[in-house]
Amino acid sequence: MQLYRVPVQIIPRPGILDPQGAAVAGALRSLGFDTIADIRVGRFITVDVNAASAADATSAVRSMCEKLLANPVIEDFVLEEPTLQQGGQS
Amino acid sequence: MQLYRVPVQIIPRPGILDPQGAAVAGALRSLGFDTIADIRVGRFITVDVNAASAADATSAVRSMCEKLLANPVIEDFVLEEPTLQQGGQS
Repeated sequence: MQLYRVPVQIIPRPGILDPQGAAVAGALRSLGFDTIADIRVGRFITVDVNAASAADATSAVRSMCEKLLANPVIEDFVLEEPTLQQGGQS
Repeated sequence: MQLYRVPVQIIPRPGILDPQGAAVAGALRSLGFDTIADIRVGRFITVDVNAASAADATSAVRSMCEKLLANPVIEDFVLEEPTLQQGGQS
């Protein structure tokens, strides 16, 4: 088993209202950033898992996203490539 | 001017306590995901800005991160490559 880090991007699905993004866009415009067209705010989660391979790590994290991390009704998630971390258990 | 989308990853700095990440890790372990070593929860923000070039878009979003989006005391931010969006103003 080795330790892999799998970053996950979770963003509101297109068409879903994002009040947090709208609030952030308004705050930035009031600071003078008037070139902003749109802002969407989601979550960025890094999951460190012990797995036999990078494919196993991705598979485990995908399962976590489907069961807990993301709400598929209103959110999309994207898994980035796993990276091998130092300090994994051999 | 063209419309660029600049994704931003914001994560708690190493060594900073992340209670949200700890809570998520605990919830996943209680669901049977016992291979989790660590989880950190941050924000993922996509900023759509009108800019003359990709470099200008990146520069504007970096300034937004420094002024409002990220808290440099406890968070690190990473800007991803800007992508040209359809529907930009020419």
